[in-house]
Amino acid sequence: MQFQLTTDFLSTIEQLISVKDGNKLRELLQELHFADIAEILEELGSDDATYLIKLLESDLTSEALMELDDDVREKILNRLSPLEIAGELQEMDSDDAADVVAELDDDIQKEVIDQIEDEELAADIVDLLRYDEDTAGALMAKELVQVKETWTVAGCVREMRRQAENVTRVHSIYVTNKEGKLTGRLSLKDLLTAGEKTKIAEVFIPKVDYVTVHTENEEVARIMQKYDLEAIPVVDEDGVLVGRITIDDIVDFIKEEAERDYQMAAGISEDVEADDSVWQLTRARLPWLVLGLFGGLGSVYIMKGFEEALNSFPVLFFFTPLIAAMAGNVGVQSSAIIVQGLANDNVKGSLFNRLVKEVGLALINGCALGLLVILFGYAVGQDDLVSITIAVSMLSVIIVAALIGTFVPIILDKRGIDPAIATGPFITTSNDIFGIFLFFYIAKLILGF
Amino acid sequence: MQFQLTTDFLSTIEQLISVKDGNKLRELLQELHFADIAEILEELGSDDATYLIKLLESDLTSEALMELDDDVREKILNRLSPLEIAGELQEMDSDDAADVVAELDDDIQKEVIDQIEDEELAADIVDLLRYDEDTAGALMAKELVQVKETWTVAGCVREMRRQAENVTRVHSIYVTNKEGKLTGRLSLKDLLTAGEKTKIAEVFIPKVDYVTVHTENEEVARIMQKYDLEAIPVVDEDGVLVGRITIDDIVDFIKEEAERDYQMAAGISEDVEADDSVWQLTRARLPWLVLGLFGGLGSVYIMKGFEEALNSFPVLFFFTPLIAAMAGNVGVQSSAIIVQGLANDNVKGSLFNRLVKEVGLALINGCALGLLVILFGYAVGQDDLVSITIAVSMLSVIIVAALIGTFVPIILDKRGIDPAIATGPFITTSNDIFGIFLFFYIAKLILGF
Repeated sequence: MQFQLTTDFLSTIEQLISVKDGNKLRELLQELHFADIAEILEELGSDDATYLIKLLESDLTSEALMELDDDVREKILNRLSPLEIAGELQEMDSDDAADVVAELDDDIQKEVIDQIEDEELAADIVDLLRYDEDTAGALMAKELVQVKETWTVAGCVREMRRQAENVTRVHSIYVTNKEGKLTGRLSLKDLLTAGEKTKIAEVFIPKVDYVTVHTENEEVARIMQKYDLEAIPVVDEDGVLVGRITIDDIVDFIKEEAERDYQMAAGISEDVEADDSVWQLTRARLPWLVLGLFGGLGSVYIMKGFEEALNSFPVLFFFTPLIAAMAGNVGVQSSAIIVQGLANDNVKGSLFNRLVKEVGLALINGCALGLLVILFGYAVGQDDLVSITIAVSMLSVIIVAALIGTFVPIILDKRGIDPAIATGPFITTSNDIFGIFLFFYIAKLILGF
Repeated sequence: MQFQLTTDFLSTIEQLISVKDGNKLRELLQELHFADIAEILEELGSDDATYLIKLLESDLTSEALMELDDDVREKILNRLSPLEIAGELQEMDSDDAADVVAELDDDIQKEVIDQIEDEELAADIVDLLRYDEDTAGALMAKELVQVKETWTVAGCVREMRRQAENVTRVHSIYVTNKEGKLTGRLSLKDLLTAGEKTKIAEVFIPKVDYVTVHTENEEVARIMQKYDLEAIPVVDEDGVLVGRITIDDIVDFIKEEAERDYQMAAGISEDVEADDSVWQLTRARLPWLVLGLFGGLGSVYIMKGFEEALNSFPVLFFFTPLIAAMAGNVGVQSSAIIVQGLANDNVKGSLFNRLVKEVGLALINGCALGLLVILFGYAVGQDDLVSITIAVSMLSVIIVAALIGTFVPIILDKRGIDPAIATGPFITTSNDIFGIFLFFYIAKLILGF
């Protein structure tokens, strides 16, 4: 039953746009879900997409616009007049409308807001633009269903009908006192079962989770997930109810965060997708490769310092990729677990205990792997002392790599820096350098070249 | 306003448990949210946690049990009798209850189900256990609000009040025909605004997104995200409405999937957390390190094959960590973008176009990095031919690494294997080996040693 965008359907659309057959297009598209319209817009050229946006009803296109990638939406908005943009905003919830306005150039923002007919919406947008990007204030919508403690159930249902006009989905009904301060919530179930004349004050639940306009998105997501909330009310500094955040925004946020962390760990510094341009992809990838290059050149210098080993123990140089790989892999493992633990807020206990644990873990892994190296050496008839040297230095490298991988993110986090930057290329590069130095240093001590 | 678990509070609890002061504990804990109770249970020993589970009301503890990590819950359930477990299940939604039963040993499952008083719930659990783990059938709950097309609005409200008793939150009201087949949905808004005598058939929305019991979880998550749904109905093979899936389950699923992919990319094969035991962490990490070790030993062999270069161009051996790092980094970048693209279903277009794009990207990155290598060689007075050799082979390695990183996941995906296994250690290890071989092979061609 799901809509599946086929190349055939897409070329039909493109064909109809090229001959400007508006009626046929409306007929084909008007019944589709906005998310499907968005999928089609993503595949079209910007001019064709803009044509469709102007052609179809705003209630459909405004929602579709919100589903688009930022860069696709930007291209389309650049092709619309302030009046046309205002027409789209008119159909949006205040949080979406404010997001769109925030993306516009400063000089157009005012023009667009002036063109919005609905004065309440325009005021809401201006209000929402005041808040910092990563806070509940910027994420919330102003539309919500709000009732006063002093009302009766019947009055409440009447008022709810009126308010519900503006609210896409009713999640919860929030209860406020005379001053508009949030005092509780009302379940639909209770409302359905209470008598008509009952006062809200008697049936409402005086306990309600909330966040303030300054709460960071990450914290909002954590609370909503922990308590399985589908919407959470937002209050201002004085406790006055000013908006609500719904779970669909949080789902998007969680997904974006996860993708960003994943990309950061893979050495991709900007939000890119497989279908972005070669230039965008280069910009996101090249800086990390340059970092890796400098790391590699650093290793060259370290090995030059141990050049004399080339005469007596050239075989050591065959093992450097192995040492570097071990240092890198262990570092990435340790940092990934810590970064995830920090994000989920379950890195507890003292730093000393963690140190003991990481060293213990590294010892177990290192000894197991060292044994394999010695067995390998034995099997290929390698000098025993060389095998032991490699095993011992690999064990040391694994311990150091685990400690770097664990404590660099923790230190960054304590200093308020996103620990995710310490995953991926950053940790592999620094561990490569440390690892190779340690390897040759220990080899020199044992083998004495 | 958020609950914050302090060590002080925790030791108070532990103290009270040790003296078995049930009244004081109930007083302290009864008012907390189940998610906070779960947080406390996670920190306690299994015996203490079990004591609390038995002490507190089942409506609180049953929800708290569902918030626990699988391994913590397993330890507690092992300490409860079948009757006690049945008591907890009694308070759960059918989907949660079925999940718990599925975790029990086979011989206890039947005993527990037999002890459940609510026969409808017991039947629902047995029914839900039939479905494959990763499908909508296993994820859905049987509780939902269902009305018939033929009812009036007034009858509908009456029936809803009755059904709502069993449903924690009313998301949507689903409409079915005589045979119980899903035919549409009803919005609360329409119900609030329609006249009492109106027939449901006149006001319901005959268009509704749904999935079948056999739809995979990943697809359910994709649909719910794409269409911003908070709940989706599930139908059986005949189109009969049998359950619904709510967004909170999907949020958990999305998060788990993201964490699993992230860990897989970091070379961690089981779902572990920073606070797991050293043994669990070793089991999750060691296999990938062994893979890396074999890769490293492979490189040793490759270099042995090019041993004669030691006499004339020993400097080449200083560059192997750099080549390996480049091959690894490029491979991880390419595979991360493709794996993410495949998950989000936005890897489109022909394989040939993708090949051209990846080669183009690798050429740009490779040339930029090669230039830096040549500049470096010039600065340190390295033989020009050696610098050019390194630059050219690095460029080739980058191209090959990008192709492996891109096409291995695509091929795996086409064969129905999770492409995420081709990220992380797997791709770095194979790229290390290919890279080092290619490097020496090209060096041999150019320098002729």
